[in-house]
Amino acid sequence: MMNMSVDNLMLKKIIATVVICVIAFSPDILSLQTVNAQAPAAYPLTDKQKDTVNQLIDDAMVGRQAYEILESLTTQIGPRLAGSEAEARARDWGVEKLKSLGFKNVRIEPFELPYWERVVEEASIVTPFSQKLEITALGNSVATPSKGIEAEIVRFETLSDLIEAPLDGFEDKIIFVDEVMTRTQDGSGYGWAVAKRSGAANEAGRRNALAAIIRSVGTDRDRRSPHTGNMRYEDGVKRVPIGALSNPDADQLTRALRYARELKTAPVKLRLRIEVTTKEKTSSGNVIGEIPGKTDEVIVVGGHLDSWDLGTGAIDDGAGVAITTAAAHLVGQLRGKPQRTIRVVMWGSEEVGLLGASAYAKAHQDELDKHILAFESDFGAGKIWQLQTRFGAKALGKAATMARMLRRIGVGPGANNARGGPDVQALRSAGVPVLTAQQNGWDYFDLHHTPEDTLDKVDPADLAQNVATYAALIYMASEMDGDFRE
Amino acid sequence: MMNMSVDNLMLKKIIATVVICVIAFSPDILSLQTVNAQAPAAYPLTDKQKDTVNQLIDDAMVGRQAYEILESLTTQIGPRLAGSEAEARARDWGVEKLKSLGFKNVRIEPFELPYWERVVEEASIVTPFSQKLEITALGNSVATPSKGIEAEIVRFETLSDLIEAPLDGFEDKIIFVDEVMTRTQDGSGYGWAVAKRSGAANEAGRRNALAAIIRSVGTDRDRRSPHTGNMRYEDGVKRVPIGALSNPDADQLTRALRYARELKTAPVKLRLRIEVTTKEKTSSGNVIGEIPGKTDEVIVVGGHLDSWDLGTGAIDDGAGVAITTAAAHLVGQLRGKPQRTIRVVMWGSEEVGLLGASAYAKAHQDELDKHILAFESDFGAGKIWQLQTRFGAKALGKAATMARMLRRIGVGPGANNARGGPDVQALRSAGVPVLTAQQNGWDYFDLHHTPEDTLDKVDPADLAQNVATYAALIYMASEMDGDFRE
Repeated sequence: MMNMSVDNLMLKKIIATVVICVIAFSPDILSLQTVNAQAPAAYPLTDKQKDTVNQLIDDAMVGRQAYEILESLTTQIGPRLAGSEAEARARDWGVEKLKSLGFKNVRIEPFELPYWERVVEEASIVTPFSQKLEITALGNSVATPSKGIEAEIVRFETLSDLIEAPLDGFEDKIIFVDEVMTRTQDGSGYGWAVAKRSGAANEAGRRNALAAIIRSVGTDRDRRSPHTGNMRYEDGVKRVPIGALSNPDADQLTRALRYARELKTAPVKLRLRIEVTTKEKTSSGNVIGEIPGKTDEVIVVGGHLDSWDLGTGAIDDGAGVAITTAAAHLVGQLRGKPQRTIRVVMWGSEEVGLLGASAYAKAHQDELDKHILAFESDFGAGKIWQLQTRFGAKALGKAATMARMLRRIGVGPGANNARGGPDVQALRSAGVPVLTAQQNGWDYFDLHHTPEDTLDKVDPADLAQNVATYAALIYMASEMDGDFRE
Repeated sequence: MMNMSVDNLMLKKIIATVVICVIAFSPDILSLQTVNAQAPAAYPLTDKQKDTVNQLIDDAMVGRQAYEILESLTTQIGPRLAGSEAEARARDWGVEKLKSLGFKNVRIEPFELPYWERVVEEASIVTPFSQKLEITALGNSVATPSKGIEAEIVRFETLSDLIEAPLDGFEDKIIFVDEVMTRTQDGSGYGWAVAKRSGAANEAGRRNALAAIIRSVGTDRDRRSPHTGNMRYEDGVKRVPIGALSNPDADQLTRALRYARELKTAPVKLRLRIEVTTKEKTSSGNVIGEIPGKTDEVIVVGGHLDSWDLGTGAIDDGAGVAITTAAAHLVGQLRGKPQRTIRVVMWGSEEVGLLGASAYAKAHQDELDKHILAFESDFGAGKIWQLQTRFGAKALGKAATMARMLRRIGVGPGANNARGGPDVQALRSAGVPVLTAQQNGWDYFDLHHTPEDTLDKVDPADLAQNVATYAALIYMASEMDGDFRE
């Protein structure tokens, strides 16, 4: 007859054996961080709390509320460029939505910002072939002269190649950075690829070129939808207009350059015209609603309300607004107040520099120590596959319990280096613990910042799995004893 | 007029600015390792070497040779269980294939191993409902009594739950570990999920249970194809038979348990029958062919020749054999000898414990210091998206150049902690530098170790991109001055 319980030494032996077996007989792709014999003891939820988590998950998985919120936002408001009149209408929509769902203390916290808007964006190959190209101006780009420019194209395979190129010889040229982006589940290919969005313009300006164009920062190959996105000029460098070609158009231009070289034709020339409107000052704001808790501690969740202007902002980031609002609402429907206040923030003007995030951090600086946890949904509507946290060492047992409760809907454990989402960066920097419910971003950069960012791309079942995950996390974060800082 | 060249300080400023822009205006999912201002200077390939790399890539991208090799192996040999007569036929096939492609020093390096083979595997729910279930025995499982067993099922949501359970009360039970696996691009969900393959049997044995069954270690949801795979019994623990249900059958069993609980029926009983054949000794071997170089330095590439018996071993690992053979052949077609010998190894008996890898490391222990680099393709046939290396610090410029040359076919830079593939583990442990051309494993664990691992799952275009990547890497590794160790 064996012992009634597994003692610690035996448990360690068991785990060590499992680890050895895993290492010995598996493909060589183990993330060993997920097989950790030193994992902290899981936080012990009560049976009642476990039942509540499971009920929230079950309800959310068959719920349609997030989809209905997203449908309403993307249809009744549509695109909502930072600082635009449409973004103002979206704020009113947000206030109405939160009030109708029973949130309390619903309000807009306003702030100001400069305004940029596209007016005209056109590009064509004019010699030695003739082809209209699909292009979009990057946010913050200056305009070309009103009649446009016409100039020879110089192509660079990567931004690194351009950085290494000489500084002269480009005075009458348009510089083209053709670097491709790698498709990844976690979006990490973006980090490398997006550098050209500002980098191409600044390197072109440094070389006194006429303009810059880039292959879109996106992973799609067969849709003529260019990807916009913000860029920033370096101080003291000539500001040249910059636009992004759709990926098929970048392919077309690259082929034209190859034929011109092989056939020894006249050089490939592009005609480019960009017009923009700017204002020094316009207004934006964060929309906030709460489920008041028993204490003055706050959990912040949300998505950003603004979007780029080309699509309807369904995956970026209507989905995040819808997921977090629906999830908080589900938790709010439970009997009794939550332990902590659940604060939904629909962040304003994220796309142009995380301006809502800065305004919030400033406005709430005196209560940041009461911010127990902050997280944002801003990576589309794909299924959540991993829980990443950034908790103090003593709170890692809470992370383990959260991940284990989510296992049955496909969420695995992740590392303790989460970033939490762009709009909670400022809170994270101020010491607020964050987590990331990491979504599958495999297709995200096919659509990101393009006209194709529309409701049809959202799978209602995946969206429901997101709501289930957020509802479970919000509830557990509200009810777990002690904080996540230490 | 500006300076002719970018000086170091300016370059650092540029990169710093790019990094700041990236951080400020991007979704919060950056892998900062890929935007590294401290990156080493890229290794300078000559223009002729660059042209050769690009030509190899262009040729491989339109080539069909890997597909033809894979078609031949999976059709003329089919499944090739470690130590079986079929694996012996596969070795003869390998020798013929390498000779016909002009490889030199073609040979088999034999070794011995114990043998295990499935004979019967059957499971059914018998009360309170009646349902035949799709099950497969795990490699190395003992048999049930020949008439099978019939017993009550006790389900655990995760292996952790089973480990935490008491040690008694399971004497007349079958233990069912239902833990789900998370789908990931890099296969990291496997590390967690596979622990139950040995763990469920050992925990069941420790509790004196009659048998164990698990939900298949796989990410598919709607195919009744169970996933096999090797397991190992712990010394001193009762050996109980263990099988894996297909994911739909695990769902079915879980639902049956729920209805039984809700309707208060008789307990759910399972009938389980597993028969196996074992032999103490059989033979296997590694098949080796070379493209002799100008020096006695060696680059080892390959895939493993054995497969599980349920499918035809197309993605695991016929693809790896085909990719590396075709790529080495392409490099061998270049004018003149390579600097280093390119050694293709078709590894034997990987699935049952990396036995070919051990045999090779032992047989070649005296020339391991001449092994310049080793890598294996053993993660299916998906597109390669990242180059990971494990090079010495001084060789990181070589990694940077390799990654940059592969950028145009979608391969991004990765970290310097590569594992290199299961069959080069022993070489890596002995200090041989390795790299991993990381494939997209999104769908890999839908098929892995199931009857569905067949040729139709392989996309010829993705396979060609693999060959292009391997050919470029083999060529660059052969021609770059200095080694990868320091």
